[in-house]
Amino acid sequence: MSYKIAVVGFGLVGKEIVRLLNEDAIPMESPPKILATRAREEELDGRTYQILETAEEHFAGIDIAIFAGSEGAKGASATFGWKAVEHGAVVVDNSSDFRMDPRVPLVVPEVNFDAITSEHRFIANPNCSTIQMVAALAPIHRAVGIKRVIVSTYQAVSGWGTAAVNQLKSQVEDFQAGRPMQVDSSIIARQIAFNVVPQIDRFQPNAFTKEEMKMVNETRKILGDPDILISATCVRVPVFRGHAESVTIETKDHLSPDEARQLLREADEEAPQFHLRTRLVILDNPSDEAPPEQRYPTPLDADSDYHVYVGRIREDPVFDNGLSLWVVSDNLLKGAALNAVQIAEMMHLKGMICRQPLAASGQRQSV
Amino acid sequence: MSYKIAVVGFGLVGKEIVRLLNEDAIPMESPPKILATRAREEELDGRTYQILETAEEHFAGIDIAIFAGSEGAKGASATFGWKAVEHGAVVVDNSSDFRMDPRVPLVVPEVNFDAITSEHRFIANPNCSTIQMVAALAPIHRAVGIKRVIVSTYQAVSGWGTAAVNQLKSQVEDFQAGRPMQVDSSIIARQIAFNVVPQIDRFQPNAFTKEEMKMVNETRKILGDPDILISATCVRVPVFRGHAESVTIETKDHLSPDEARQLLREADEEAPQFHLRTRLVILDNPSDEAPPEQRYPTPLDADSDYHVYVGRIREDPVFDNGLSLWVVSDNLLKGAALNAVQIAEMMHLKGMICRQPLAASGQRQSV
Repeated sequence: MSYKIAVVGFGLVGKEIVRLLNEDAIPMESPPKILATRAREEELDGRTYQILETAEEHFAGIDIAIFAGSEGAKGASATFGWKAVEHGAVVVDNSSDFRMDPRVPLVVPEVNFDAITSEHRFIANPNCSTIQMVAALAPIHRAVGIKRVIVSTYQAVSGWGTAAVNQLKSQVEDFQAGRPMQVDSSIIARQIAFNVVPQIDRFQPNAFTKEEMKMVNETRKILGDPDILISATCVRVPVFRGHAESVTIETKDHLSPDEARQLLREADEEAPQFHLRTRLVILDNPSDEAPPEQRYPTPLDADSDYHVYVGRIREDPVFDNGLSLWVVSDNLLKGAALNAVQIAEMMHLKGMICRQPLAASGQRQSV
Repeated sequence: MSYKIAVVGFGLVGKEIVRLLNEDAIPMESPPKILATRAREEELDGRTYQILETAEEHFAGIDIAIFAGSEGAKGASATFGWKAVEHGAVVVDNSSDFRMDPRVPLVVPEVNFDAITSEHRFIANPNCSTIQMVAALAPIHRAVGIKRVIVSTYQAVSGWGTAAVNQLKSQVEDFQAGRPMQVDSSIIARQIAFNVVPQIDRFQPNAFTKEEMKMVNETRKILGDPDILISATCVRVPVFRGHAESVTIETKDHLSPDEARQLLREADEEAPQFHLRTRLVILDNPSDEAPPEQRYPTPLDADSDYHVYVGRIREDPVFDNGLSLWVVSDNLLKGAALNAVQIAEMMHLKGMICRQPLAASGQRQSV
């Protein structure tokens, strides 16, 4: 069995999706069809890609449509996602538009792949900052239950797309040249070079940002537990790639740091064996005698790799059953492109991808 | 009344102390005497300073000795602090060596100046990350009591001295020139440009760092409440100046965000009127319609000014009585030099500085 795959969006995430597909985890009948806001030719890793303007007709005959959900592709799945399903494709959507839709499973494959049944044709990919946190918390939640989560994030600019990456680059260039830094507040509200900005995405009426509420609501949905109490403070930092998170949890039953490490190790061993596999890596040697690169993970350690790193695991004295941990992963890979491709790979391995062109009417209800 | 003042240390903090003394908040008989590890001549703001090698004899006749406690001056107060007291000086010490000493008051003037009695001649200045947090939390603690504090920090490199500032600068220069970045892990354990590092100071046996435990222990001592449960995750970020903190608290009685803002405003109005005054500034307009610079503080907003900024005040749903806030201040000023000079200014205003040369023996016990 080999598939026809479409990738919608060719920004930072779309490009990573294409790169991952080129790793041949999923058998492809032909190179992926790339769709975006406007037709163009673009190079990636020395290959030239013909990009077509997204239109419904391009989904005819497609088995898997992955919506990158970023930048120019924002809103594409709202317009074309369900149409692709009507044409028989399985859709994996990295936009935030359908994540909380009760018809749509929200999936981190290692955590809740079983949320996808053979009826589901439209799967949502969670938010970057949610995925890595949930990957680390799920084994703990399964074992002893989590009551409370308090998280503060350190999020890379690439999470906000190419324009944000360029904003940081140009501000650093200005700094180095001794020029005043140019700030385009429509991209990141404040100067991001040599600064940190406690706002990611728009403010909500409850004074949390949309990014913060994504972490709350998506974590509950993925863990299947609406009672977990979660609060997040999401902060943009001048890092190009790799999100870090300072996470404090209260568990229902006591769990020592050693037990937590053991749980995470076991979860990693038992995780589904993807071609493109995410390891849950414990990097936790809190000692000044340990070589610096073995003490804890930093965003740099995760840059461009597939894994979720956990360090700084320690008893948190604020709760009787408290643990603190530090979670790092590449926001474009496990946080976006890789998780989406893993969902598609897993559906392929389980034989859940078979083109089912259905009548247009009644489609959305049936999903 | 005018005083003879000595400043011990001429690194980033020592220089700020000299700058602040030049603001004439405290009447000086002569320019401050500057002591450091080695004698030299150094320029600051166009003036040349003669720096003497620290030795006991230089404290003879000194009324106020301020130990910068950073870099080259590390350990100076351990060697010379009590000797300066024996020579009759009031000592304000920014090192961490005596902060938890029960004989030594640990003071943020707006919060607990009354911890200093007329018998005290040796006063400790708290850690930078502690000072700004306590300044924001004290009015809340006084009004409704605080049970739990969970804090994650975003700390500027200048908190680790000139070498760390230069490390960030040179790594950015390497990046801009397309060279591999040089990392001197004896300064900051990992690359700090375009990265974040969850280690500040040395690891303790409980897997927290020394910086994190300072926040715990010093906060309790300053607030005079050993029962507050506190946990901290301290993280170095690629910012030159200005620390930010994401703080979640559980209060004993309920406090709405509006009530918290009101409390902080009142505390600011009632604060002691220094010449060099720290305002408690609420910068909290969580709306995308507000101009970006009015939504919340960032380290950039506090760079080189005297104030403690509080924003992102919101109900924290993790606790029945939960609040989250975001606190920013200049780590070299309110976090170090300014708070130290304010202690001296306040002691001057209250007539607590009068040279009392005492017999060397029995001195330390009497304090």
